Amino acid sequence: MDLVNTASLGPTSLDNIRAELVRMEDSIIFALIERAQFAQNTNIYQKGFFEGLDSSFMEFLLHEIECAHAKGRRYTSPDEYPFTSPLPPPVLPALSFPPLLHRNTINLNDQIMDIYITKIVPQLCPKGDDANHGSAAAKDVDALQLLSRRIHYGKFVAEAKFNDPEHHDLYVELIKAQDGDKIMDLLTNHTVERRLLRRLRRKALIYGQEVDEDDDELPTPTHTTPNNHTHNHNHTHPSTTTTPTTHQKPDPSTKTPRLSRDVVADMYERFVIPLTKQVEVDYLLTRLG
Amino acid sequence: MDLVNTASLGPTSLDNIRAELVRMEDSIIFALIERAQFAQNTNIYQKGFFEGLDSSFMEFLLHEIECAHAKGRRYTSPDEYPFTSPLPPPVLPALSFPPLLHRNTINLNDQIMDIYITKIVPQLCPKGDDANHGSAAAKDVDALQLLSRRIHYGKFVAEAKFNDPEHHDLYVELIKAQDGDKIMDLLTNHTVERRLLRRLRRKALIYGQEVDEDDDELPTPTHTTPNNHTHNHNHTHPSTTTTPTTHQKPDPSTKTPRLSRDVVADMYERFVIPLTKQVEVDYLLTRLG
Repeated sequence: MDLVNTASLGPTSLDNIRAELVRMEDSIIFALIERAQFAQNTNIYQKGFFEGLDSSFMEFLLHEIECAHAKGRRYTSPDEYPFTSPLPPPVLPALSFPPLLHRNTINLNDQIMDIYITKIVPQLCPKGDDANHGSAAAKDVDALQLLSRRIHYGKFVAEAKFNDPEHHDLYVELIKAQDGDKIMDLLTNHTVERRLLRRLRRKALIYGQEVDEDDDELPTPTHTTPNNHTHNHNHTHPSTTTTPTTHQKPDPSTKTPRLSRDVVADMYERFVIPLTKQVEVDYLLTRLG
Repeated sequence: MDLVNTASLGPTSLDNIRAELVRMEDSIIFALIERAQFAQNTNIYQKGFFEGLDSSFMEFLLHEIECAHAKGRRYTSPDEYPFTSPLPPPVLPALSFPPLLHRNTINLNDQIMDIYITKIVPQLCPKGDDANHGSAAAKDVDALQLLSRRIHYGKFVAEAKFNDPEHHDLYVELIKAQDGDKIMDLLTNHTVERRLLRRLRRKALIYGQEVDEDDDELPTPTHTTPNNHTHNHNHTHPSTTTTPTTHQKPDPSTKTPRLSRDVVADMYERFVIPLTKQVEVDYLLTRLG
């Protein structure tokens, strides 16, 4: 994504960023659907629960995956922020990126991690421990990486807004005054936010539905419940099961969403949008530095 | 998933396995949608293309991820088969699994890798190189791991069929005669296969559609094209872009599927089903050994 010469590209650039943000929603929803298969398994978030590990099991796995991705030069990219350190250097030759962003050290991953574990997983997953520790943690890693990328994309959003001639001078003035509240007001677009939340509810409904084996009609997402916690296939598979469990037989006559209509929109409204805007404000406050 | 005492559970056990296979379809479709965002990027499959690597970049990343997962004891599970070796030992204490399967060494991952690179990616992704090497390879790793698990699940299918009292004696007879063809006939269920392919087309249509920003109607998958290669957002993001590219502006008035209706069903019909059945036959041929 090209943010060089944003001003000369005009609003197209912000449109392009928005298209990327829209696409990221789908990746995030898929990742949440995948995580929602498994119980909360809160033990994977407890430091010291598993013998031989200093960190929690999920953070251990996250670090190992980040090490692998670091060798593949993931974190040399201006839109990728690791949660853990230290990480090994890339084994691939470095890529050169154009100067997309003003120099900054903004990294909200600690907050994202905390919110993910304490707010998102409890809303997303059935309570309890289904022994699928490895699978659940692997899905956590996917979701966290996607949420981090999405939220830190606020830097690109902020850069594009800053370079938009319509408000450039006003941004400069507010930055000089270090007026974070007025910057927040200026960059907030309530229309875009409302459309985003509406779209997310629709996506959760569509991508979250289960497609029946014997349904010749094209499914429409009409069978919804406000809460997916009432629905649990007890989806234990052998990959990390300590003791055998018996599956509940799914009832083929019902179409039950695997993701409640509201869980994704709520997450965006309460966390993703505010954190993205925090990134934008933090970025702009140092934009002239 | 409990395969112990399969016979005593009766057909419920095979139903449970099928429910798991159905659920895996969704994970595989999500993974393919994610991979289809990026161009084929065939350089990532070329040994020696990237300096400093003995293997291809994708295989390098796959090995690194498998090392991370091995430390998290993924491959101690009877339904997980790594593509690469050597892998480090688990850092977590071992889990004890009940004896789910007869001892066997069946591993079709080399074939799966070859088919994935030479048959699936070319059908799935737009031609060319969009410089998203890291992102594309990471999605390849996800897809390969899911396909491998799905295909090797044939061992559980075979075990359940073997223990089903209805055909147990006949299986024993055919195994003693080492008659792979007749075993293949016996375990083939054309009705189930037809339903599976029909369901996959529906799923690809539903999960593969893009949800419009400004569409207040609930989308139904009516806008389909036979080939998704005509549709390419030129979806380059900065994570692995060497040179800045300009996004094509998406046309908000069209709903274009990101995945053609047939790409998933074709993949299953040509590769996933035959390979799964090959696993089943191979497994059964040594079941009495």
